[in-house]
Amino acid sequence: MSKPIPVLEVFGPTIQGEGAVIGQKTMFVRTGGCDYRCSWCDSAFTWDGTGKSEALTPEQILDRLESLAPNAFGHVTISGGNPALHKGLGDLVSLLKSRGIQTAVETQGSIWQDWLKEIDAVTISPKPPSSGMETNWQQLENHLANLHTQQVSLKVVVFNREDYAYAKHVHALFPQYDFYLQVGNEDPHLLDDQELLQTLLQQYEQLIEWTMHDQAMKHVRVLPQLHTFLWGNKRGV
Amino acid sequence: MSKPIPVLEVFGPTIQGEGAVIGQKTMFVRTGGCDYRCSWCDSAFTWDGTGKSEALTPEQILDRLESLAPNAFGHVTISGGNPALHKGLGDLVSLLKSRGIQTAVETQGSIWQDWLKEIDAVTISPKPPSSGMETNWQQLENHLANLHTQQVSLKVVVFNREDYAYAKHVHALFPQYDFYLQVGNEDPHLLDDQELLQTLLQQYEQLIEWTMHDQAMKHVRVLPQLHTFLWGNKRGV
Repeated sequence: MSKPIPVLEVFGPTIQGEGAVIGQKTMFVRTGGCDYRCSWCDSAFTWDGTGKSEALTPEQILDRLESLAPNAFGHVTISGGNPALHKGLGDLVSLLKSRGIQTAVETQGSIWQDWLKEIDAVTISPKPPSSGMETNWQQLENHLANLHTQQVSLKVVVFNREDYAYAKHVHALFPQYDFYLQVGNEDPHLLDDQELLQTLLQQYEQLIEWTMHDQAMKHVRVLPQLHTFLWGNKRGV
Repeated sequence: MSKPIPVLEVFGPTIQGEGAVIGQKTMFVRTGGCDYRCSWCDSAFTWDGTGKSEALTPEQILDRLESLAPNAFGHVTISGGNPALHKGLGDLVSLLKSRGIQTAVETQGSIWQDWLKEIDAVTISPKPPSSGMETNWQQLENHLANLHTQQVSLKVVVFNREDYAYAKHVHALFPQYDFYLQVGNEDPHLLDDQELLQTLLQQYEQLIEWTMHDQAMKHVRVLPQLHTFLWGNKRGV
């Protein structure tokens, strides 16, 4: 019997809105709990007590996924919070793999789990200064060393020039990994979708401008969060 | 001395707005001429006589790229029209490769050139019924057989349900290739950016909806054209 995992949301099918598999048709499993407290976290309900998690076994999670999209998905994204808090996810990853389902995970690279090796697309997203968090560089390096280069991408969310400088530093330290710059969402509670869209597009253009003439940023990708363009700050899409 | 190539635009650095390398920092080289006449072509100036091409050698093209982004690019996208009309591009591709610059090409898969084998990311985009064009399936199959699976992605632009059915057919015929569905831009001459953005977002949401519960579309990516979100129908960005 597999150990239960604290799950906040199981939803989909929808598109992955960001990072290396942007646009991918996927299901989402969002776990509860995080070792970080990023000032601008867009999923703070996973750790600030406002969201209620449910203890589900891997088999129960798979049942939910199948009832949401009967025979209509081949990809699952495990998100959080920080999913790497949960050793028990290893059983879910094995179960999905045994069904031929591809997996993606996003984590900040602060906690290691062996099951990360089994994930098809691992996004490691160290947090920039605006988050208020401190990066443990040694931990991050160990994390990356445990994974295949092709399996990993690095992603840094950028809110301001200081964050951009941090992103450059990360890219310079680990140039062999696919590198993504992502526009930050300054107000994950804003309900006016039009206002949010205009703000995010302006910030995206700004981030592109910084990157385009930067000689230290040749092999990078600059992306927005597509789901916020489509659905604003709504949850579960 | 290399043979000159008819070039309509050399621009960048900017982001790649679509397909497999969406978000990638890149330079663009747009060649003139096309063997197709798609009804909704967003670059009709490459073949309808409204754009004037210039005959440039690969060395001259590289000079232009370097003056636009001195020591600040590592990726070049060759676009059209249909770049596969031009045998002479082989020398440009070799020249870029010798400088360690990565390349991407988009073509409909109607004409073969050996230099396609040297391209890092080949997007083959067969044209759906709304284009008014006929697909030569044998030609498309030969095209794909000449390339490595990892090097290629298939992309189909979708304007309506008939196009969507065509996209499914392409994906079913060649399931081993990364597959992208892309929202069509119905009015590439519309100058009202806000109106365009709203229309494109609605169409993107519609395309996502069609795909999400479709059991034949498990391993697909659904993407918009990011550059139209940012810059509307403006050229050279």
